[in-house]
Amino acid sequence: MATSEDSADDRLRHLLRERYREEQPAPIACNATLDVLLSHRSVRAYLPKPLHQGTLETLIAAAQSASSSSNLQAWSVIAVEDPDRRSRLAALARNQSHILQAPLFLVWLIDLNRLGRLAAARGEPSEGLDYLESFLMGAVDTSLAAQNAVVALESLGLGAVYIGAIRNRPAEVSAELGLPPHVFALFGLCVGWPDPAKPASVKPRLPNDAVLFRERYNDGQAQRNAIDRYNRHLRSFQQEEGLPAQDWSVQASDRIRDAKALHGRHVLRDVLHELGFPLK
Amino acid sequence: MATSEDSADDRLRHLLRERYREEQPAPIACNATLDVLLSHRSVRAYLPKPLHQGTLETLIAAAQSASSSSNLQAWSVIAVEDPDRRSRLAALARNQSHILQAPLFLVWLIDLNRLGRLAAARGEPSEGLDYLESFLMGAVDTSLAAQNAVVALESLGLGAVYIGAIRNRPAEVSAELGLPPHVFALFGLCVGWPDPAKPASVKPRLPNDAVLFRERYNDGQAQRNAIDRYNRHLRSFQQEEGLPAQDWSVQASDRIRDAKALHGRHVLRDVLHELGFPLK
Repeated sequence: MATSEDSADDRLRHLLRERYREEQPAPIACNATLDVLLSHRSVRAYLPKPLHQGTLETLIAAAQSASSSSNLQAWSVIAVEDPDRRSRLAALARNQSHILQAPLFLVWLIDLNRLGRLAAARGEPSEGLDYLESFLMGAVDTSLAAQNAVVALESLGLGAVYIGAIRNRPAEVSAELGLPPHVFALFGLCVGWPDPAKPASVKPRLPNDAVLFRERYNDGQAQRNAIDRYNRHLRSFQQEEGLPAQDWSVQASDRIRDAKALHGRHVLRDVLHELGFPLK
Repeated sequence: MATSEDSADDRLRHLLRERYREEQPAPIACNATLDVLLSHRSVRAYLPKPLHQGTLETLIAAAQSASSSSNLQAWSVIAVEDPDRRSRLAALARNQSHILQAPLFLVWLIDLNRLGRLAAARGEPSEGLDYLESFLMGAVDTSLAAQNAVVALESLGLGAVYIGAIRNRPAEVSAELGLPPHVFALFGLCVGWPDPAKPASVKPRLPNDAVLFRERYNDGQAQRNAIDRYNRHLRSFQQEEGLPAQDWSVQASDRIRDAKALHGRHVLRDVLHELGFPLK
């Protein structure tokens, strides 16, 4: 039976309320894609069930369909399925058990090697690659691509979680994956079928007006009020999830306190130099 | 009348053929979201028609639904609608006329200011923000968010194009937008209704096997063959579009040749230092 709850704008209102824990105006009609996007949750518990044939190639086609700066396509991706390799990678990324549990671990690479080789094959210089800008451009291209893959897989009922901890031990990760110079493993991504016995929840986010400004930047009282409200919303979420109660302000500032809070990533610049990125 | 062309797997096969210009196996059934993702094209011609009410907030809700490293939410976005400001920003970004034409210009910001202020309000240090890792984390968070907004807007029939050239003159862009230290305008995004009189085409991408590797990196003969095929596909595309014929290998290596090819972005590291990012 169709009720008012089934209508497209009620659906959007429901999704926004889950995300923000505040009532939002929802004058736009929901559609299947908005539903996928707004329902996102990071999945850390997977069924021992393989992906359907063709899934990987479809996700990569979605990834390649994302925009790319000057069409340089400065990324590659390694699909790791071998359990031993996933186990070794998990050990390098704070032993996150979902890296072992998910049938597929994608490692997303900033790849300036392909471009450098193109230039070399033509006998041309590729000095532009030595600049911080090229590394940053690669990071953006890689991220846009990966996010498209995440949206694609969620539309297929699959779940995923990004693994930034792959940056904790970059030299070892590079060796494990046989990365040549000018290639950097930016993040991992676990992919698999979510375990319905351990469902993931939608994580509340900062109110809209903490991150969206009009015409010029504005970090005034409205932003501070929004953060106060968010601390309360996150407390409710923590209570529901049985997590320790802690304000976002505290969590976030603990995470940026000092070099030690970066879990080894404070040496990133030096490591990148060794991996062939002078970052001029 | 339903024909075999209407079936979901034929639709995926069609979209993959458009993207790669090669026949691909397509064993996965298409859905509305895959259709949006794989149909992406960058739009540079817009109708003079305002967005529907609530569009901006919906796009930002989609953006905020993307994953965020340790939930730090290290980004903000400025919605620029004022024509004079869009005109000044266009002048700073190689005078791209679509920045003036599209009714909305979103400037996506790596935002470490909010986190630094949180820590300061608690009397805590925020030295972690001074490291390259935190800047990179912000770039990834910002990009994942923006890409979700792009997917959302395309699902609503809108079009967009990323504007990396906003990085050509970072100090001036910061002044125009009133950015405090520890905030960096990573890229812009034009948003509007595509002009049906000037339809954008799907840009072909490198074959799957040039960017997707199994278990370990592999830039051997298969990658070189894939690039050769791509040069041919791109030539066909250029011919159809009335563009000058040029191999991707040539285009790409020209774009990375030297500092000059970076359109002013070779000074990015120094500029970031001035904007409050020591990148330790």
